[in-house]
Amino acid sequence: MSVPPAIRRHAERSRPDRADLDDVLDAVPVATLATVVDGEPWAVPMLAVRDGDRVLLHGSTGAGALRQVAAGAPASLSFIALDGIVVAHSTFDSSANYRSAVVRGHLELLQGEDAARALDVVSDRLIPGRTGEVAPSTAKERAATLALALPITDGAWTVKVRTGGPSAPEDGEGAGIWCGVVPLRTVTGPVVTADWVPDDVGVPASVDRLVERVAGGGLR
Amino acid sequence: MSVPPAIRRHAERSRPDRADLDDVLDAVPVATLATVVDGEPWAVPMLAVRDGDRVLLHGSTGAGALRQVAAGAPASLSFIALDGIVVAHSTFDSSANYRSAVVRGHLELLQGEDAARALDVVSDRLIPGRTGEVAPSTAKERAATLALALPITDGAWTVKVRTGGPSAPEDGEGAGIWCGVVPLRTVTGPVVTADWVPDDVGVPASVDRLVERVAGGGLR
Repeated sequence: MSVPPAIRRHAERSRPDRADLDDVLDAVPVATLATVVDGEPWAVPMLAVRDGDRVLLHGSTGAGALRQVAAGAPASLSFIALDGIVVAHSTFDSSANYRSAVVRGHLELLQGEDAARALDVVSDRLIPGRTGEVAPSTAKERAATLALALPITDGAWTVKVRTGGPSAPEDGEGAGIWCGVVPLRTVTGPVVTADWVPDDVGVPASVDRLVERVAGGGLR
Repeated sequence: MSVPPAIRRHAERSRPDRADLDDVLDAVPVATLATVVDGEPWAVPMLAVRDGDRVLLHGSTGAGALRQVAAGAPASLSFIALDGIVVAHSTFDSSANYRSAVVRGHLELLQGEDAARALDVVSDRLIPGRTGEVAPSTAKERAATLALALPITDGAWTVKVRTGGPSAPEDGEGAGIWCGVVPLRTVTGPVVTADWVPDDVGVPASVDRLVERVAGGGLR
């Protein structure tokens, strides 16, 4: 029995290696957190940063919904980077290049030093080395911030990746039809300095590193 | 009683106008579909295209999970575009510029001509005018594709937008600390033509329009 094309394509796109998961999570700084509240789906997009075998999330302690889902809630965290539009000889065969990941588990509310360290990790992953350039967070700031972690557990995540061009038409199909790929990537615009910053205060190393990371394709 | 800063910030970012919802949905072609399966959160990233007062989704009829959630399932569809990293005088005040939307409702499985038209709308929104350049989808192709819609209903969506720079430090804070924004945007790379396409078949108007759309900031 042959495997239907749609199933085959699906299987080809799955990536079972943990390194592939880390690649997606490290490249895509935003995710959608989904959980169940009163039997209904509840979802919100937010910043999400991998820290070893967990994904860190944070929000304001004033955000009621996030606090409601914090303690032990079953959660799904979904990442996607759209890397290109794949233009085939038919609309059916047209597709998208992408990297996606879904991590499933139960949210953990972080406390004390672990919460404080997690917030520093989030800052330094987005703006590499920034915590070394500014004063440490105050106790009041920490108290206003909810830090959550979703553990990365074997068998509780999936990664799918599509790369490359469109599938070639069968004989006799698509004669004279252009096919190809429109690649997409993220770039930085010119860095904007806040108007109160004195002229002699230059762009710091952390921001240079962020710009380099984006230029290297390390952020989508 | 004063409103805590975190709550105030949250409220400032909410956008109640339907036009703002349309702007986000039209700029962000991927979303995370979240629902509830057996009491657990289930989420998957996918292409999502607005068609008037509904959002269209599609997938393979071979994708079991999507079929399972198709018929009347309560769903949440979440969109985000990360537009910049906001670097403040403290990590606490640092932030991100973004546009996000969440649309809640119940999925509808499209049938017959409505399904066929929906798939054409999806194609033409991603590759503008492509359906006019290729043969219509065959009955077999249509049968292999699941088309779903999530209606956009008053009161069942939220939009949040953050733009601009960091908040200014209080007196005495952050002296000598650089603050500003690193803007992020999506660009196309050079268009890649499939190797079987004859040299005399040029890049079509639909692909030119897609490239122009990205260049104009119309896709994240």
